[in-house]
Amino acid sequence: MRLASLKQGRDGQLVVVSKDRKSMALAAEIAPTLQAALDDWDAVAPRLQALSDDLDAGRVDAKPFDETACASPLPRAYQWADGSAYVNHVELVRKARGAEVPASFWEDPLMYQGGSDSFLAPYEPIQMADDAWGIDFEAEIAIITGDVPMGVSVEDAGRYIRLVVLVNDVSLRNLIPGELAKGFGFFQSKPSSAFSPLALTLDELNAHWRDNKMHLPLLSFLNDAPFGKPNAGQDMTFDFAQLVAHAAKSRPLAAGTIIGSGTVSNKLDGGPGKPIAEGGAGYSCIAEIRMIEKIQSGAMKTPFMTFGDRIRIEMRDDDGQSLFGTINQSVVKYGNA
Amino acid sequence: MRLASLKQGRDGQLVVVSKDRKSMALAAEIAPTLQAALDDWDAVAPRLQALSDDLDAGRVDAKPFDETACASPLPRAYQWADGSAYVNHVELVRKARGAEVPASFWEDPLMYQGGSDSFLAPYEPIQMADDAWGIDFEAEIAIITGDVPMGVSVEDAGRYIRLVVLVNDVSLRNLIPGELAKGFGFFQSKPSSAFSPLALTLDELNAHWRDNKMHLPLLSFLNDAPFGKPNAGQDMTFDFAQLVAHAAKSRPLAAGTIIGSGTVSNKLDGGPGKPIAEGGAGYSCIAEIRMIEKIQSGAMKTPFMTFGDRIRIEMRDDDGQSLFGTINQSVVKYGNA
Repeated sequence: MRLASLKQGRDGQLVVVSKDRKSMALAAEIAPTLQAALDDWDAVAPRLQALSDDLDAGRVDAKPFDETACASPLPRAYQWADGSAYVNHVELVRKARGAEVPASFWEDPLMYQGGSDSFLAPYEPIQMADDAWGIDFEAEIAIITGDVPMGVSVEDAGRYIRLVVLVNDVSLRNLIPGELAKGFGFFQSKPSSAFSPLALTLDELNAHWRDNKMHLPLLSFLNDAPFGKPNAGQDMTFDFAQLVAHAAKSRPLAAGTIIGSGTVSNKLDGGPGKPIAEGGAGYSCIAEIRMIEKIQSGAMKTPFMTFGDRIRIEMRDDDGQSLFGTINQSVVKYGNA
Repeated sequence: MRLASLKQGRDGQLVVVSKDRKSMALAAEIAPTLQAALDDWDAVAPRLQALSDDLDAGRVDAKPFDETACASPLPRAYQWADGSAYVNHVELVRKARGAEVPASFWEDPLMYQGGSDSFLAPYEPIQMADDAWGIDFEAEIAIITGDVPMGVSVEDAGRYIRLVVLVNDVSLRNLIPGELAKGFGFFQSKPSSAFSPLALTLDELNAHWRDNKMHLPLLSFLNDAPFGKPNAGQDMTFDFAQLVAHAAKSRPLAAGTIIGSGTVSNKLDGGPGKPIAEGGAGYSCIAEIRMIEKIQSGAMKTPFMTFGDRIRIEMRDDDGQSLFGTINQSVVKYGNA
């Protein structure tokens, strides 16, 4: 199934989208919002699936689907926990400042608690008061869970995954060092994230979803130029089952919990990757290319985003179909949107 | 007004409680849940106030109020951001390990993003798999906001405060050092928090609420023995308006955001406080007395909580009225509740 939330009120209006992403059917009679569907998934999902089948068979009154009318699938959520499962990304950031990656980072996932009360819509501008804060995108995969019991095992955790989405985990790089130095993790340096228009059930992903990972390139375009296409199935040190189990060690996770992969990042021949222009898979954030520039030349050259810049993030199927729709955001000065 | 949420479904059932805390009126016809009330506060609050007035005047069908039937006022929330506004607490923790408090800690609030998807009810046991994790309570004040615009000034922030509650910010002390060393802040070391049965509007607090602080002793009882009674209005380096403005620097805060004060902690004659048994104001967490024991004798003596231990937290008015009701939790082994 392909689910989306049209902008409406605080929680959106749940719709089921056709396989060709061209039409949709309102799901209001089954569940008014995606959160309501997740709250009662076992009863609701079969009815949404039936509506989806009817839509694809032309048996319901379909309306045109316009992904620019979408909010994030969960416009606000009860939990957004973001992992950093591509340790290559962490290693690069550390290497650039001459620090080693502790051995534990390969065994115990990094994860931070993000703000989940005010997500941006996929086509909504990133409003920021000051571009001196170092505005960066982070292209990621995320999953949305059902109710997960406390202490769930890695073996069991995968079956609580209900939906897959893409994320732009907007980051304010120049606020991060000061904030992390205080020891309490990110807060102001992680403003509102945006999610892809579509949330997909695992069966939609066919063989691209296996081993609790998403095995396709994640495409980022900065100001319309290809910037990253790393394969999300490669170099993911911790899979989503491990991330769910990590999050649930000392508390249950409520239905609608969103867990992110962290910035998708591929190695190249065991070392750091290359830009797309040089034949590499590129990067899923600006910070990473800056680290490589620093390692290679001593100076960071690529600037962070400034007002007027645009980031597009999507993932394409073998036949070119945009699986989740596009996250498409410009950066604008706060108050000028 | 005094609002509470009876346990029902995922979000509770909103009730208005009488001034003597003995009776209540269902608010279902006005707003089914506290979150729904906060989502539309300007329209809903006057109607809840009218119901409250009718209840106190004996003009409505009242039912007996039983705080043990309550969920936390927001059984799940879209945001729980916890400050550490009593820098005395931070100073003690640092002093015990021989570290100074950076000067910036007195100017820029510490705040972490907490999990908000699965709060405990005020009388619900703290279930934990292993008491070797160092189970501790933290008695705090918290406020619940309306919609706060990004970049709100400290001067304006206070007027977005809708309600005041008490919190037990359960902490797993022995998981904290490893987690903070990874640099991403708390996650597993901060399991589900519990909130007081009652959430109060500011007008209920009379002169005890001023300067965006709560000016009354916060009472903690560990296994029924008085453990802490520090005054929440003293030694609060950052008031709630400052905490709200800090949280909203780079993103808006959605209605129903909960912002905590951090562990309430008083100095005594400019130095660390004394236990209640020695004539002091005591402590709002076990970690703090352990720090003082370490500073004074070289060894921490008071153990963290173990299975069977109980913590009670409340705040009393001048005439002995328990303002917010009681947080009353035992620690039990996970699965044995």
